[in-house]
Amino acid sequence: MISMLSNDTRGVVAPALPGAGRLRPLGIDEVTITDGFWAQRQRVNATATIDHCDAWEQRVGWIDNFAAAAEGTVARTRTGREFSDSDVYKLVEAMAWEVARTGDPRLDARVEELAQMFERVQEPDGYLSTRYGRPGQEPRYSDLAWGHELYCYGHLIQAAVARLRSGRQDTLVRVALRAADHVCEAFGPDGIASVCGHPEIEVALVELYRATGERRYLDQARLFVERRGTGTLPDIEFGRAYYQDDVPVRDADVLRGHAVRALYLTAGVVDLAVETGDDDLLEVARRQYARTLARRTYLTGGMGSHHQDEAYGDDFELPPDRSYCETCAGVASVMVAWRLSLATGDLAWGDVVERTLYNVVATSPAADGRSFFYTNPLHKRVPGQEADADQVSPRALSRLRAPWFEVSCCPTNVARTFASLAGYVASADEQGVQLHQLVPCTVTTRVAGGDVRLEVATRYPEDGDVVVRVLEAPDGPWELSLRVPAWARGAATLDGVPVDGGVARVAGLRAGSTVRLALPVTVRVTLPDERVDAVRGSVAFERGPVVLCLESSDLPDGLQVDDVELVPGSPVQDRGPGARVRLRRVEHDERAWPYAASAAGAAAVPGSDERALASRGADVEADLVPYNTWANRGPSTMRIWVPAG
Amino acid sequence: MISMLSNDTRGVVAPALPGAGRLRPLGIDEVTITDGFWAQRQRVNATATIDHCDAWEQRVGWIDNFAAAAEGTVARTRTGREFSDSDVYKLVEAMAWEVARTGDPRLDARVEELAQMFERVQEPDGYLSTRYGRPGQEPRYSDLAWGHELYCYGHLIQAAVARLRSGRQDTLVRVALRAADHVCEAFGPDGIASVCGHPEIEVALVELYRATGERRYLDQARLFVERRGTGTLPDIEFGRAYYQDDVPVRDADVLRGHAVRALYLTAGVVDLAVETGDDDLLEVARRQYARTLARRTYLTGGMGSHHQDEAYGDDFELPPDRSYCETCAGVASVMVAWRLSLATGDLAWGDVVERTLYNVVATSPAADGRSFFYTNPLHKRVPGQEADADQVSPRALSRLRAPWFEVSCCPTNVARTFASLAGYVASADEQGVQLHQLVPCTVTTRVAGGDVRLEVATRYPEDGDVVVRVLEAPDGPWELSLRVPAWARGAATLDGVPVDGGVARVAGLRAGSTVRLALPVTVRVTLPDERVDAVRGSVAFERGPVVLCLESSDLPDGLQVDDVELVPGSPVQDRGPGARVRLRRVEHDERAWPYAASAAGAAAVPGSDERALASRGADVEADLVPYNTWANRGPSTMRIWVPAG
Repeated sequence: MISMLSNDTRGVVAPALPGAGRLRPLGIDEVTITDGFWAQRQRVNATATIDHCDAWEQRVGWIDNFAAAAEGTVARTRTGREFSDSDVYKLVEAMAWEVARTGDPRLDARVEELAQMFERVQEPDGYLSTRYGRPGQEPRYSDLAWGHELYCYGHLIQAAVARLRSGRQDTLVRVALRAADHVCEAFGPDGIASVCGHPEIEVALVELYRATGERRYLDQARLFVERRGTGTLPDIEFGRAYYQDDVPVRDADVLRGHAVRALYLTAGVVDLAVETGDDDLLEVARRQYARTLARRTYLTGGMGSHHQDEAYGDDFELPPDRSYCETCAGVASVMVAWRLSLATGDLAWGDVVERTLYNVVATSPAADGRSFFYTNPLHKRVPGQEADADQVSPRALSRLRAPWFEVSCCPTNVARTFASLAGYVASADEQGVQLHQLVPCTVTTRVAGGDVRLEVATRYPEDGDVVVRVLEAPDGPWELSLRVPAWARGAATLDGVPVDGGVARVAGLRAGSTVRLALPVTVRVTLPDERVDAVRGSVAFERGPVVLCLESSDLPDGLQVDDVELVPGSPVQDRGPGARVRLRRVEHDERAWPYAASAAGAAAVPGSDERALASRGADVEADLVPYNTWANRGPSTMRIWVPAG
Repeated sequence: MISMLSNDTRGVVAPALPGAGRLRPLGIDEVTITDGFWAQRQRVNATATIDHCDAWEQRVGWIDNFAAAAEGTVARTRTGREFSDSDVYKLVEAMAWEVARTGDPRLDARVEELAQMFERVQEPDGYLSTRYGRPGQEPRYSDLAWGHELYCYGHLIQAAVARLRSGRQDTLVRVALRAADHVCEAFGPDGIASVCGHPEIEVALVELYRATGERRYLDQARLFVERRGTGTLPDIEFGRAYYQDDVPVRDADVLRGHAVRALYLTAGVVDLAVETGDDDLLEVARRQYARTLARRTYLTGGMGSHHQDEAYGDDFELPPDRSYCETCAGVASVMVAWRLSLATGDLAWGDVVERTLYNVVATSPAADGRSFFYTNPLHKRVPGQEADADQVSPRALSRLRAPWFEVSCCPTNVARTFASLAGYVASADEQGVQLHQLVPCTVTTRVAGGDVRLEVATRYPEDGDVVVRVLEAPDGPWELSLRVPAWARGAATLDGVPVDGGVARVAGLRAGSTVRLALPVTVRVTLPDERVDAVRGSVAFERGPVVLCLESSDLPDGLQVDDVELVPGSPVQDRGPGARVRLRRVEHDERAWPYAASAAGAAAVPGSDERALASRGADVEADLVPYNTWANRGPSTMRIWVPAG
């Protein structure tokens, strides 16, 4: 059964589109990123990354799996992990957003071509998987913990939502609706009373409800959210917390387990809460995510401290060298923070979106858009080897960018995010327009009083001047709001007047007028909460929203980053986009045992000046560079947190 | 074919018995631990742990697997992981040493009973596995990377060696010799040209050669060592370094990959080098292990920083909260260090044996000997839950002691080590007797000049007085040597005379004479190499060979260990077996984001006194306790490295 499409929300081309909440996101049909950092990323995404992903998915056989499934040979020939279908769907989603953004006819045709392959594989009842259910394969839904069938549907549905929102009702939409209807049959109140080991279907179903008005999708999402945490999945080595099945959603107080799973689930929970008007549930999600930010998040915005289970660690367990910070967790965290902005109207969540975009999602792809970090460590002790451009990399060895991975969720996640990035920039409400991200862009939308057209010009984040020119404005009252990042509070000005708090507001702008937000973008020194033991005695440097790092490429004499420390009291010079600092060589004593008695004796706890085992050598100066640029100049060592003497 | 037993080495009851090298180990028939810390551990091992392991191996079906294999039903009923046979063999080895130590007839009969089960399973050509090779099972040696068949033989052989050395030629010996002969056939020069994914067979075959004089076992061990690192195993997610198949043994410069694998391999390499007179190979092993101690070892002697692959991290990547420090790696490290002592005559390796025994191996079992740490973290941030005494614990959740694990290598490894512990205490050479471990014991042996009988009395490590009474001594020249631990160097005295260097030597002692070694056992403050980033700004406390820790059980007012820091300059009081320190409450600011701008501004790097984000509260005093006693008083938080203000 094909669900009917409602007309009221169609045509708004946004990656998340709540039917309620405080703010309405502006779609990529309303916001165009015109220049600067993100425009460049979008260009590389369009000209390199999307085709790169398509080529690799052909090469490793994940697309051929669909052809083989249609021909009935897939049980013998299938390649890739259980969830490889999802990466094809994420590629299609990236293409769909790119078509929406640019109208690219080649990609449009490719979406249709792939969707027709999906359609040939789809079974009469809507079931769709290249991995399960055929002769020679395990039965469908025989392994909900690890099988990922519902996870795959989720990405299929998100791709279809991108098409629906860009006004298409094509094969992809047809396939996704049939799959969604099948899910509602198979997992509905009278169906399998369980959930998928990897949350994702939840957020996708709510979005599909939003795009179609079909209530059963929302009801099914609610069922999945309510079942999660009731122990319907098996207990495993990592515990049920791995897939958030340890505690009912409403009873948990922090994100835990596999970070991407926890964050996709939370995105779905926010969406469900908004669509059902369930403020308690919204507060549950907000509280869990806020606590996660306060205690389980790296300076980059990255999440996940454990490689073993790709999971959050305990509070303040944030080792920089073993930071997992999966790129996909960055994407998912952006999804959650953006949804909270829209639901609550609090622009401060945009700080998280910004931090995570600049320092996790933007760090993943190489400058050429053809290799990717899967994990994003904050400290690299040993110069890694460049991945072979011709090889699939195992996930665990992904400490330098690689062109493709055995588990390759990240490249397509970056691609779909970049293609739809304009959809995270601005919102509107009855009162006016809110600029969440300070990017050079045009905004064309409508508020209660009439049409608004804006042009934002800025070199941000290289400098802090953001100029908004009003090209068209309503005659009546309306308000323009600009997010002021937390680091700029108290020092930002709007047209020279100090801004109070986290939002700069100006009312009644008319066509032809201009406002200038000035943010103090200059290097600043950042300290960690003392409970983040792993970076005690170290400081970091940030510049605007950009986290800086020390990379060995910028050190003289073949020094590595662990051979130096900062000199207390030494000057820190702003050198946009980086900074320059003075460092001192640490002449490590190559002792046989890396621990030694305090020279101050055993009678008392030594003071900080009595605790050095190594001697100190000459000073050197070095540039700090944006973390998102690291590892583009050959193998290097790198650290964000630099010890200070 | 049953190999012939040689007569020249039989009857010396030692867990490692080189045919060459500088020192001959004294067996457990020559050394008896009579009192103190280790005698208590041996008592608990004998009265609780061994039976506990036997009961659990029955309960989880790993012993029944043998019965089922004999009856032909095992393909249907088998329980446990691929390598569960090895845990039955390690239990039998523990029993064998216990029988050798005490003559316990009940355990002696149990060894025979289990050996007869093994014999019924063994195939005519010597192959022995409950997991592979029968109808309904995968073929033998079809998965060398993960199948562990040779690893299992290794433990079977080590158990048989324990029997051979205690003068038995029983069913167990017969089974092991047939298995070893089969290995030589199947993996010999004309056989399968590969190795086992888990080293262990190497050390076992050299030991079997030593115990039997059968040269083919030594030759086969050499083949395995030479094949390792030539890429005969598949590349895997963790890389071939996981099983040391990345680099030929002679070309590697440090231990890497899975720590237990690396250490078992290294024990075998030392043994092979010694028996073949290959000094270059001995130096390879010495150098790799020395570098591992210098850069990849925790203060406790524990090894392994990665949970994901139970592996070493990069140099100085030693996070205390994520320390893996598997108990088995501790056992294996003791094996390596002891072998290096014997091969090189350098008593300093005894420091490593001692540190690892007191702080890793002794930490694993609870005081009652019925639950175990699998991993031994140096920092526990959140009070763990006690494991259910009735449940099998997954390995990954083993942060509190558990009675049994899905992978349960550690309990039986502790049991076999404790039962044979007297075999690591002393050695002899032409010149005399060396005391490596300072434990209350009797030593009865023979040196060139005649019989020696010693009685060692000491409360070490609680205090540093070690009194050796000579009960019998040769008339001619001989020498008694006692290891002086590195931390005592320069401060130790022998009969009141300062000892120069790492060994206290006294020549020509006669019956009735007494010597007194005095070591400065008192609390001392220990600092880390600055490259161990994760403990920067923190200090540890040691007392003799014992690492101390701060446990929340010893803090007032419900404080957790992360709520306090040491007060620089404050007194440290020795309170054997622990210490008392002054701490200051850290009043953490519960900020929404755990990083903040330095109040000192951005113009300069802040000094250490400008870097606090939290405010400081009242001082409290607390006792530090031996790390090996922690978590015996209910759930607690704990840390070895304590931040100092």
